Amino acid sequence: MPTINVQMFAGRTTEQKRDFVKAVTEATCKSLGCGPEAVDIVITDVKREDWATGGVLWSERKD
Amino acid sequence: MPTINVQMFAGRTTEQKRDFVKAVTEATCKSLGCGPEAVDIVITDVKREDWATGGVLWSERKD
Amino acid sequence: MPTINVQMFAGRTTEQKRDFVKAVTEATCKSLGCGPEAVDIVITDVKREDWATGGVLWSERKD
Amino acid sequence: MPTINVQMFAGRTTEQKRDFVKAVTEATCKSLGCGPEAVDIVITDVKREDWATGGVLWSERKD
Amino acid sequence: MPTINVQMFAGRTTEQKRDFVKAVTEATCKSLGCGPEAVDIVITDVKREDWATGGVLWSERKD
Amino acid sequence: MPTINVQMFAGRTTEQKRDFVKAVTEATCKSLGCGPEAVDIVITDVKREDWATGGVLWSERKD
Repeated sequence: MPTINVQMFAGRTTEQKRDFVKAVTEATCKSLGCGPEAVDIVITDVKREDWATGGVLWSERKD
Repeated sequence: MPTINVQMFAGRTTEQKRDFVKAVTEATCKSLGCGPEAVDIVITDVKREDWATGGVLWSERKD
Repeated sequence: MPTINVQMFAGRTTEQKRDFVKAVTEATCKSLGCGPEAVDIVITDVKREDWATGGVLWSERKD
Repeated sequence: MPTINVQMFAGRTTEQKRDFVKAVTEATCKSLGCGPEAVDIVITDVKREDWATGGVLWSERKD
Repeated sequence: MPTINVQMFAGRTTEQKRDFVKAVTEATCKSLGCGPEAVDIVITDVKREDWATGGVLWSERKD
Repeated sequence: MPTINVQMFAGRTTEQKRDFVKAVTEATCKSLGCGPEAVDIVITDVKREDWATGGVLWSERKD
């Protein structure tokens, strides 16, 4: 505890994920006052065809 | 906000997902009174061997 | 299946939730081709002090 | 209801998942007093490069 | 790991939850072959007015 | 996107949550290369009687 679930678009490299979990864990420990071993982070890669905003799949958005 | 997470059996086509997110977003905006850009939908495809009802995986159900 | 989890700001009335689950279930059945009894919807009310966008809690946003 | 979502490291066999959903459903029904058909379990396989504890991805932990 | 999230109707006693987490943890360890300290369970109580099946809130179902 | 769901023990102050979402958003933007408005964080407070590790509710753990 805390347990952090993150949904992001697929495509990030392992290096980006490595930096991400390190930085978010440090930010969590500093702001909430807990030890790093208490922080679990689970990343879920989401394809653009599985995420919609405004009723439109991101795989089909023009912007 | 709102953010809608949907777990469904894998196998739907992109066309079905396109119709789904469009229809659910419209239904959400109409019933809750929010703008479409506020509605995020994330779809998770679940394999039948990863979903159980009544203690039996759907990949092994007879019905 | 499908199972739909919805996070929305707290404050909606039971009437709004009733309309919402009815409309979203109909939209789901029509677009995915499943029976209504297969559709589960779970609503989670989120307080504005527990939701942040852009690093700012919604309870503290000016807009 | 209840609906049980389980995140576990990828790599379990279908036989292990079959045993798992059977045993957890029985444990749930006995402790909560519900019928087995009311129990849904969804398993999410998580790769070791998508799970971090203590700020380190499990794919990169030494232990 | 594994991490188990459970949504159930509100109203269970602490004694029922105590039995539930003990029984589910044992079932998990036995079927998946992991140590008990690796098993996290988080329970979410859901009000009947926040759960719908077939497009009807459970607070308004007749059965 | 990304959307970050955080489960933590209840009891944090609004000030701690404010620091947390600010720090985690900054860490996310820096490591993943996205703009802050793309980052949503939803906090779920979990009571100690609803979280178990090793088959024991945290409200009943001795340590």
